[in-house]
Amino acid sequence: MTTIDDPTAAHDLGPEPDAGPPDRISPLGQALREATAGRWGHVRDRARRTLPVELMQRDPGLTMPQARDWTRDTLATLTGRGFTTSGYPVAYGGMDDVGRSAVDFEMCAHGDLSVTIKSGVQFGLFGGAVASLGTQWHHDTYLRDIVTLELPGCYAMSEIGHGSDVSSLETTLTYDEETDEIVVHSPTASSMKAYIGGAAVDARMAVVYGQLVVDAQSHGVHAVMVPVRDEHGQALPGVALGDHGPKGGLAGVDNGTLMFDQVRVPRRMLLDRYGGVTSEGDYVSDIDNPNRRFFTMLGTLVRGRVCIAGAGAVAGRRALSIATRYATQRRQFSAPGHDGDVLLIDYLAHQRKLLPRIAQAYALMFAQNQIVDRLQDLHETDNKDQEAQRELETRAAGLKAVSTRFGNDTIQVCREACGGAGYLAENGLTLIRRDADVFATFEGDNTVLLQLVAKGLLSNYKEMFGDLDMFGMLQFAARSFGGAVIERTAARPVIDRLVEATRVGSGGDPLHDRGWHVEMFEDRERHVLETLATRLRRAAKNSDDSFEAFNSAQDHVLLAARAHMDRVVLEAFVQGIEDCSDPVAQDRLSRLGDLYALSSIEADSAWFQQHNRLSATRSKAVSAAINELCRSLRPDAVELVEGMGVPEEWLNSSMLVEPHWTP
Amino acid sequence: MTTIDDPTAAHDLGPEPDAGPPDRISPLGQALREATAGRWGHVRDRARRTLPVELMQRDPGLTMPQARDWTRDTLATLTGRGFTTSGYPVAYGGMDDVGRSAVDFEMCAHGDLSVTIKSGVQFGLFGGAVASLGTQWHHDTYLRDIVTLELPGCYAMSEIGHGSDVSSLETTLTYDEETDEIVVHSPTASSMKAYIGGAAVDARMAVVYGQLVVDAQSHGVHAVMVPVRDEHGQALPGVALGDHGPKGGLAGVDNGTLMFDQVRVPRRMLLDRYGGVTSEGDYVSDIDNPNRRFFTMLGTLVRGRVCIAGAGAVAGRRALSIATRYATQRRQFSAPGHDGDVLLIDYLAHQRKLLPRIAQAYALMFAQNQIVDRLQDLHETDNKDQEAQRELETRAAGLKAVSTRFGNDTIQVCREACGGAGYLAENGLTLIRRDADVFATFEGDNTVLLQLVAKGLLSNYKEMFGDLDMFGMLQFAARSFGGAVIERTAARPVIDRLVEATRVGSGGDPLHDRGWHVEMFEDRERHVLETLATRLRRAAKNSDDSFEAFNSAQDHVLLAARAHMDRVVLEAFVQGIEDCSDPVAQDRLSRLGDLYALSSIEADSAWFQQHNRLSATRSKAVSAAINELCRSLRPDAVELVEGMGVPEEWLNSSMLVEPHWTP
Repeated sequence: MTTIDDPTAAHDLGPEPDAGPPDRISPLGQALREATAGRWGHVRDRARRTLPVELMQRDPGLTMPQARDWTRDTLATLTGRGFTTSGYPVAYGGMDDVGRSAVDFEMCAHGDLSVTIKSGVQFGLFGGAVASLGTQWHHDTYLRDIVTLELPGCYAMSEIGHGSDVSSLETTLTYDEETDEIVVHSPTASSMKAYIGGAAVDARMAVVYGQLVVDAQSHGVHAVMVPVRDEHGQALPGVALGDHGPKGGLAGVDNGTLMFDQVRVPRRMLLDRYGGVTSEGDYVSDIDNPNRRFFTMLGTLVRGRVCIAGAGAVAGRRALSIATRYATQRRQFSAPGHDGDVLLIDYLAHQRKLLPRIAQAYALMFAQNQIVDRLQDLHETDNKDQEAQRELETRAAGLKAVSTRFGNDTIQVCREACGGAGYLAENGLTLIRRDADVFATFEGDNTVLLQLVAKGLLSNYKEMFGDLDMFGMLQFAARSFGGAVIERTAARPVIDRLVEATRVGSGGDPLHDRGWHVEMFEDRERHVLETLATRLRRAAKNSDDSFEAFNSAQDHVLLAARAHMDRVVLEAFVQGIEDCSDPVAQDRLSRLGDLYALSSIEADSAWFQQHNRLSATRSKAVSAAINELCRSLRPDAVELVEGMGVPEEWLNSSMLVEPHWTP
Repeated sequence: MTTIDDPTAAHDLGPEPDAGPPDRISPLGQALREATAGRWGHVRDRARRTLPVELMQRDPGLTMPQARDWTRDTLATLTGRGFTTSGYPVAYGGMDDVGRSAVDFEMCAHGDLSVTIKSGVQFGLFGGAVASLGTQWHHDTYLRDIVTLELPGCYAMSEIGHGSDVSSLETTLTYDEETDEIVVHSPTASSMKAYIGGAAVDARMAVVYGQLVVDAQSHGVHAVMVPVRDEHGQALPGVALGDHGPKGGLAGVDNGTLMFDQVRVPRRMLLDRYGGVTSEGDYVSDIDNPNRRFFTMLGTLVRGRVCIAGAGAVAGRRALSIATRYATQRRQFSAPGHDGDVLLIDYLAHQRKLLPRIAQAYALMFAQNQIVDRLQDLHETDNKDQEAQRELETRAAGLKAVSTRFGNDTIQVCREACGGAGYLAENGLTLIRRDADVFATFEGDNTVLLQLVAKGLLSNYKEMFGDLDMFGMLQFAARSFGGAVIERTAARPVIDRLVEATRVGSGGDPLHDRGWHVEMFEDRERHVLETLATRLRRAAKNSDDSFEAFNSAQDHVLLAARAHMDRVVLEAFVQGIEDCSDPVAQDRLSRLGDLYALSSIEADSAWFQQHNRLSATRSKAVSAAINELCRSLRPDAVELVEGMGVPEEWLNSSMLVEPHWTP
């Protein structure tokens, strides 16, 4: 087995095809890239050196069927070169390196997002479910073929009537004692499996979620492997397959529907790690509480959310890389006393569009590295700490919501910042825009996920039954919220030191004092959370209608989640600055850190003023400081996007004519 | 000639094909539709009754060439039925009804946006330039063929190197005295005409903008008609045509490039209404000042901006119509004590996404009606008031920026509010999203347009040389800004009465007092504008670098424009509420008016608090009042979207299963 810190790990993948030199990049860009590389920096470097540009770029003129073919073929090539399966056990062809698999996914997302999502369906969702929810027989029988793409599959969880509320799935998995089979059935129109990647064309096997019924008793949602197509691609008897056809994006992913008419599979096809049926026909599970069991099964979604968070942030970084470079080349109006027309990047309004987003991109890179570390650490631990697992799940949910929001908004801003050129497919922004759009929805709707975050905070991660039961929040609030203690991230020591220094008082400008930033963020989170708990407690006491009690505070719930995530992300950034060994890069990171913190404070300035955390004067000073930071970072704009790690060769943008760095 | 208020005007268009009954709609929806119909309500009704659904909906699975063919054919059908050319003089086949043509464009935008934009290219830009900038010979020779689509054309203004800064176009139009011809030439790579709708395939004639050179002297930008393709679609000698290929959207519009290699056309092809060349070879113009002449020519863009403002707002209304109806059908989680799962629309967070946008949609409908009225009034006036014309241009620029921003942001929110279903093309949101995206860019980049608004305000519309010369703002600020007077919209009498009533004091709740809303909006605009003028004056005095002086205040400039437009839109809304004769509809409009005003105040709460216009307590009360308004409007959600005027039959959304109103 390969150790994860071994930079020679790539030898496991055979000879490196098409390995080229590292891309041309400025020294500052390189230093920033190293500062943000994280524990799997060598994996990033290898991908940048070895992934051929033609695998990274889908022709935007392809029809949907052509895009699907190209996507399937490209995924096969990437898989053959070892870029998609590092998370699987070595015994089945992987590298047993979960963290690396998340970074591989990020690197994939630097290319075509249809390929990336198709990879996520096969190796993350379908194969991931077999690995996590299955037992030895499933692994031995199927994992090797899944890893080689010999067995293409799909992950049939969502139903047309049940997206976010997975516990209400209607599909039934009924054990038939007589034949020792599981009968898979779609009892209603609303139980149709929908939006399923792979269902329309490619999948031969499905992991189907439904209510497991044994001896007329329901045991909640379980998953079973069901063959859906024969080797010629024909639907098997009792299986009805549909094609969702054109979508907002991801043209290369064949999303479709499945319905089952009393389809029978042998009992052993049930993925029975957390609950199964004995040969005597009895239901058994190591987890007695059905809610906890269900939630444990859903916990396997955490990897997917971590991956989508990473991909969403990458999509934003790609767009920023294009728009920022364009802004340093494109001139607009003439100005007296200036040679030639003014570059777009020299307009304050344009700086305001791009630079705070670059700062946020850096913040999210550090936060992503941190969560991948955590994922790997928990994976390596034999003795699972339930609270730590809940905390990771909560953070993955929150980071997924925050990073995909960042991604989508940023791509749109970048598209518009490039004017008409940004609207031409040849300039590289329009496909990203389309494909990343749905990141806000799948792997958990962002609005629902943020509520999950709030629930985790209110319960101190102690209990979380059901992924999405929001009314439970009321009970947690009423019972278990302990007050002003907010938990710290991995950056605790450095944060404590900074806050202490600020409290002692340096007499300096608080706007650029990181301790002040942290205090502002912590204070906001603590106050929002405390008042939310109080409010929910009171509402639960005074109202007969727990839905209304919760619902009237829903905006407060979402604010609590955002305030928490802002703080978590800031702390990751603070740690990243602290860890940077290159003084010039550290200086730029430090300014980006200020810009990230002040932009968040400015965006929430109304709240800070309402709660006497920010005077009118200082709130104006925050905006002025942001303008000044934009101006001070502008000369390094291209170096900053180089540092975000997207090779210039991968940008796929005809309008970028000047290569930036020639040594 | 038809009079515009004649509801029988439709008889000019021959028998009505496929006329069906009015769509099914609730009484409240109908009353709201009438309240928002404006002066051309009969045109809207006729379109809703007679436009066949198949002309309104493009198959999202079409390839780009198929989409172009479908768009061309559909435009021809709509044109044959009289839906696209009402703005032209009766003598050439139109109705001489400029206002109606803007409303026709809005109704077109209820269908496919590629067709709408293709129509705008042919009849608004290309034909509009011939009508506005040409003289009798051009009209007699070409307009009839333009109106019948016999002569498809394009509008070749933008160059690849010059988008927003039109005065710097590099294309030359050189008068050759010897042959009495104009020589059209593209001297550099950056002078290539780019993004030109119609250039890739269909256009046979181009209106080409370039620097007119007579006797070696440049007279600034003029336009000339240049044949570019023969009847077989082949490029004419000296003309190089390119195809931009796939774009972010508008797949049916054939955008492309043009370059000219010393192409010669007879002198009379110059569109010489505002400047031309005599048979003696002398340059002549009624407008001596070249800047004013240029700006007068660009003034013809005002209609295009009004139309795009309308189309952008329609796109937002269509998305809201779909997402709101879906939210009243789609259930998500169960709740104790509630029958079945909770409808999406019953979640506060969901209401917060949709209802303030519905309020804004209503606000923009009234503002759009007002600007179309104004356009028609000024068109009818023989004695052109230059200040009134500048004011109209400013407002059109501002409304275009505000309405297209509303449109794009709203479509995205609606897409996400419909979850995975919103991402399927069959549900009607994804094509709108793609196609409307570029509205933020063309007909003037929104950021540039907002600066134009600020410039108009600073100069009190007295002088505006050059569409886009922002440094001139400094001079206006230094010279001519008169202080605290802000001009009133058409709603002046009712506004004055409301403000007076508030000043006298009703003792009621100010949050629902429209006079208070108006005062808040006016006060913000006045303060932002005064401080901007002061700041620019000071900067101009203290700085050698006028660019930097302007640039450091650019965020302030944009704020001034937005504050102004918010106020203009609010006043239109106030007038619309006042004019509504149905008491129930008026009550709902009144609540929507409150919601619009309070949402704007909430969004700018930081500013209001910073400037002591809003206490911490009241700012919290604003948010609470918004929540309460959302709750109070929720029962009428579908009626409110019916009132926005999009027929249920046109929504083209498979997921909407329940027709709302059955009498």
